[in-house]
Amino acid sequence: MIKPLGQRVLLEKVEVEKTTVSGIVLPDSVKEEKNIGKVVALGTGKKLDDGSRVEFDVKPGDRVVFSPYSTTETKVDGNEYLIIEEKEILAIID
Amino acid sequence: MIKPLGQRVLLEKVEVEKTTVSGIVLPDSVKEEKNIGKVVALGTGKKLDDGSRVEFDVKPGDRVVFSPYSTTETKVDGNEYLIIEEKEILAIID
Amino acid sequence: MIKPLGQRVLLEKVEVEKTTVSGIVLPDSVKEEKNIGKVVALGTGKKLDDGSRVEFDVKPGDRVVFSPYSTTETKVDGNEYLIIEEKEILAIID
Amino acid sequence: MIKPLGQRVLLEKVEVEKTTVSGIVLPDSVKEEKNIGKVVALGTGKKLDDGSRVEFDVKPGDRVVFSPYSTTETKVDGNEYLIIEEKEILAIID
Amino acid sequence: MIKPLGQRVLLEKVEVEKTTVSGIVLPDSVKEEKNIGKVVALGTGKKLDDGSRVEFDVKPGDRVVFSPYSTTETKVDGNEYLIIEEKEILAIID
Amino acid sequence: MIKPLGQRVLLEKVEVEKTTVSGIVLPDSVKEEKNIGKVVALGTGKKLDDGSRVEFDVKPGDRVVFSPYSTTETKVDGNEYLIIEEKEILAIID
Amino acid sequence: MIKPLGQRVLLEKVEVEKTTVSGIVLPDSVKEEKNIGKVVALGTGKKLDDGSRVEFDVKPGDRVVFSPYSTTETKVDGNEYLIIEEKEILAIID
Repeated sequence: MIKPLGQRVLLEKVEVEKTTVSGIVLPDSVKEEKNIGKVVALGTGKKLDDGSRVEFDVKPGDRVVFSPYSTTETKVDGNEYLIIEEKEILAIID
Repeated sequence: MIKPLGQRVLLEKVEVEKTTVSGIVLPDSVKEEKNIGKVVALGTGKKLDDGSRVEFDVKPGDRVVFSPYSTTETKVDGNEYLIIEEKEILAIID
Repeated sequence: MIKPLGQRVLLEKVEVEKTTVSGIVLPDSVKEEKNIGKVVALGTGKKLDDGSRVEFDVKPGDRVVFSPYSTTETKVDGNEYLIIEEKEILAIID
Repeated sequence: MIKPLGQRVLLEKVEVEKTTVSGIVLPDSVKEEKNIGKVVALGTGKKLDDGSRVEFDVKPGDRVVFSPYSTTETKVDGNEYLIIEEKEILAIID
Repeated sequence: MIKPLGQRVLLEKVEVEKTTVSGIVLPDSVKEEKNIGKVVALGTGKKLDDGSRVEFDVKPGDRVVFSPYSTTETKVDGNEYLIIEEKEILAIID
Repeated sequence: MIKPLGQRVLLEKVEVEKTTVSGIVLPDSVKEEKNIGKVVALGTGKKLDDGSRVEFDVKPGDRVVFSPYSTTETKVDGNEYLIIEEKEILAIID
Repeated sequence: MIKPLGQRVLLEKVEVEKTTVSGIVLPDSVKEEKNIGKVVALGTGKKLDDGSRVEFDVKPGDRVVFSPYSTTETKVDGNEYLIIEEKEILAIID
């Protein structure tokens, strides 16, 4: 398992079906990864001067939108993950 | 639905009719998106040290002017949105 | 109407007659916009920690010199405006 | 007249006679503007938290050396001026 | 031995077997170094104003993921090492 | 005379004889200016909040090594000078 | 002698024998200077507000690893030196 450090979050990429307004699912090749991912694990939390840790606004399982170019890709045991600072997560998709 | 995080705002693009001074509506192709949008949803608000959240100067429904190159585009359920930091919103159009 | 946010100011461009020292007005094409504008409206003022707002050094009607590359152009109801941070306004022309 | 804002200064360019050591004045084309200017007017002074204004180290009439690339040129009523932050003025020439 | 200074960490590169999902080990040439390393030694710790030193979140032996382009390579006694600031270590692989 | 402002220093370039180890003085063309200069005058000193001025670590007459690309050249009354922030002076040559 | 200023350190370059694992010393041309140097002299130490000076973590004679591109080269009395900020020294080689 991967345990992020500080105020970082571990994400899995979410592939978004590219569908036209009328609902036709387009072929794989045009799958849009409109910088959307799913939260897998939370980090240790940023250390504050008094020794406490900052809480997170997101939780495992949340589908989120993140800033492009703000993730580090890594591959462990064959699985691909993204590691991102929480402040680069822009929104939660209910 | 998309819930922005922190002091961010969710916008929809507003297409501005390109009209000459004499009022003739020009064809689609020259529709100017002079960085104008409509507020759809407000974020959770920036967390202050005392745990309170910063209030917003804009509200849902406001037509606003924003800095170019300061938005992240995303597409959810077929709808296109812009996510922006409130400090990049320059003015409200009454 | 456009209401700037924070310590921003709404300007109109001022076209400066390009005249030689001897007073001959040169043709339109060489009209110099030596980054000079006229104040149209003041923003809401920057919020201070105690909730008060910062006052402005400029006022509507002032002719001002501003830093090049520091304005955002926008067009509303056919009129062109510039939106600028007050700190980028360099001087007032009496 | 031009009234600079904050800790800015209004300068006139000073053209320096390019002379060889033996005193021969070289033709116009090689007039060196080794970033030297003359102070024309002082700004309103930077506002401090207690409402007071920062004093200036230079005064009108001083010949000064300034950092290259740190001035904004403007032209008002046919006269060319430079507007500069005082901190970019490097030295006073007695 | 190499003793890092401040909040730095000494790492050894970890070569990751590039295997397809079905488990076939690919040839050397495609060994992926997906910015993964092993902690060899901790630094002296960042000095705080009261003279104490900041503790580390990682410990010797940990397998870690680090930001690309954030390490300095060095070679001592024939061994290759990476020196990195702890804040560039993104996660620990349990 | 030139009076630097703030924590700046006025330097003269020092031309360093390019000599081989065996002591042969090489021709003018390869005179190395390994960013070495001589202190000519000290500035007014940086103003502190309590109105006092910061002292200098260098004094007129010191031979010093300075960071490349950190000086502004100027020429007054036919003499060439360098103006530099004291923090860009790296060392004193005893 | 060269006396560095502030929290700077004077280094001499250390040439590292490029040897293969089996111990064969490679020719001069491939001498690796894997950014390793020897401490020659310590600076005056960074001035703190209370007038005291910051202590150094390194001492003359230490062999150290430093960040590439963080040194200024200079040559005095025929000897080549490197001047570096202590914070760019990454580790001490025991």
